[in-house]
Amino acid sequence: MNIPSKLIEDAVTEISRLPGIGKKTALRLALHLLKQNEVHTEALALALTRMRQEIQYCKTCHNISDGEECSICSSMRRDKTVICVVEDIRDVLAIENTNQFQGLYHVLGGVISPIQGIGPEELKIESLIERASQNSGEDSVKEIILALSATMEGDTTSFYLAKRLNEKGIKVSTIARGIPVGGELEYTDEVTLGRSILTRINYSSE
Amino acid sequence: MNIPSKLIEDAVTEISRLPGIGKKTALRLALHLLKQNEVHTEALALALTRMRQEIQYCKTCHNISDGEECSICSSMRRDKTVICVVEDIRDVLAIENTNQFQGLYHVLGGVISPIQGIGPEELKIESLIERASQNSGEDSVKEIILALSATMEGDTTSFYLAKRLNEKGIKVSTIARGIPVGGELEYTDEVTLGRSILTRINYSSE
Repeated sequence: MNIPSKLIEDAVTEISRLPGIGKKTALRLALHLLKQNEVHTEALALALTRMRQEIQYCKTCHNISDGEECSICSSMRRDKTVICVVEDIRDVLAIENTNQFQGLYHVLGGVISPIQGIGPEELKIESLIERASQNSGEDSVKEIILALSATMEGDTTSFYLAKRLNEKGIKVSTIARGIPVGGELEYTDEVTLGRSILTRINYSSE
Repeated sequence: MNIPSKLIEDAVTEISRLPGIGKKTALRLALHLLKQNEVHTEALALALTRMRQEIQYCKTCHNISDGEECSICSSMRRDKTVICVVEDIRDVLAIENTNQFQGLYHVLGGVISPIQGIGPEELKIESLIERASQNSGEDSVKEIILALSATMEGDTTSFYLAKRLNEKGIKVSTIARGIPVGGELEYTDEVTLGRSILTRINYSSE
């Protein structure tokens, strides 16, 4: 594509670096901004720059934060005895949207993946062990919930974490794998279905 | 969606103002920028701001330009006797990519659309008439090619322009409507097929 303006070409090049945006879409976005009032472009540029420069990560859970400690860790309403371990920030948002979890989080920053060269030391694992080991009276951690992806890497990481945490005598659980709510049995893949039978939940009163 | 950071929320709001980008995609893009080095975000913000602030429109053809006159109008290689009238800048790029047109352009900035309240005076029509009327010896305009969309509004605009330009005694043509190259006859819609028969091209030597 031969764009007659260097300014637009530069903008298109930068926009198309974003994931899932090609040259054509980038050009459409650039021309859209040109049609709009100048304040829109300024607001966008400022918001992006400020976000990148001023963002901080919570010193406790490594979640994104506007200050030293994120709004979840500093909240008085959260149950500080349960920590949910997730891969990245988006998982925190996903779980928060369910409104089913009132504890704290711990963002690992990835999963163990030998192929991509990510070992345990690249992840925030030591700080998790430390958090779990701290005995601060009423607020000492009682349970660690592992909420990692149901992939080979996720499972490896879960296994590694469970081993490390069990040594400390902390209860470790993982989120259930099974048929999605609303899913039909006959269309569920064999592995998921098999797992959901193995990890069945007891309904009868014991 | 409940984003725990005001900085990210602002960025997401601004990104999702762009056409075709919703809140989820905006968040994905914002988190992508956070993962990248800071220079990427800065380059993007700068490119957008510069584009919006410094862009100019060619004083002759109203195409985007880095200076007073665009690279097409100021080129010595272009045929100044033919002007192709298009709706917007993207159409210029599309036609340039075909490498089939060596003349100049005229960007109307839209088409006549009573429903959207766009009348002839909202478009760059007077400057087109002026360009067409100028008699500058060898370079005086011999033909105006209308290359507007094949919609009701596009056709209305073409009709209006043809009427105005014919008054000045200038040859006016419109790009052909017909079956797309590579298109099969049986899958072509009736209106297009009907038009392509009416506007058939004579192969026999006259």
